[in-house]
Amino acid sequence: MTDEVDLVTAYWTAAEKRDWDAFGALVAEDVVYEAPPSRERVQGRAAYMRFNREGFPGDWHLRIVKIVGGTRTAASWIEFTDSDGAAQPGLCFFEINPAGAISRISDFWPEPYEPPADRAHLVERY
Amino acid sequence: MTDEVDLVTAYWTAAEKRDWDAFGALVAEDVVYEAPPSRERVQGRAAYMRFNREGFPGDWHLRIVKIVGGTRTAASWIEFTDSDGAAQPGLCFFEINPAGAISRISDFWPEPYEPPADRAHLVERY
Repeated sequence: MTDEVDLVTAYWTAAEKRDWDAFGALVAEDVVYEAPPSRERVQGRAAYMRFNREGFPGDWHLRIVKIVGGTRTAASWIEFTDSDGAAQPGLCFFEINPAGAISRISDFWPEPYEPPADRAHLVERY
Repeated sequence: MTDEVDLVTAYWTAAEKRDWDAFGALVAEDVVYEAPPSRERVQGRAAYMRFNREGFPGDWHLRIVKIVGGTRTAASWIEFTDSDGAAQPGLCFFEINPAGAISRISDFWPEPYEPPADRAHLVERY
């Protein structure tokens, strides 16, 4: 475990617990969140805490599948389950500032899809 | 740069060049590729090289946006541009065996989406 893995583990643990004070303490005052597929952006700790606290109502849960920790950077793969029990992977890339706080989050939510028929002979399905 | 970052950089560089011999040399004999959103799986180096060589025809290009290298693990974010010029992010998590070869790839291709209206007041768009 590295500091970066510990930090991202604490981030997701705080989100799962709805412990927004702990969550806020892990992100930089000037944190920037972006979701490239929806072109959403949230800037600053207060706005980002509000986005997380109010933007995702319902009894969702999350489970960490994998965290990769580099040097002041990390990536995570979580499984997010909504209040209807539907599960979806969530993928984030993180930048971490010299003080050890998360300064940038790039967030992706891939949807299920059927593979193209023209490569069906090259794969198995599971 | 770490060995893991170098390895994944070489992997994407070989794919961009269609240098399939170089590409194949970077993955383990028993490599397993999975795309969780489409539940596609490819097992073994020969099948995985064929999948890459034949499964993605056309004049596509890719650009590395970010690589996070951990200890025998890595994650990458690339931008893939198809022959029509349409760009899409591609996200991969890698496992790396003790010999330094890629042994598992988990691959995700998020599509663009419109954010839910009920959180529009909590975000900017860009």
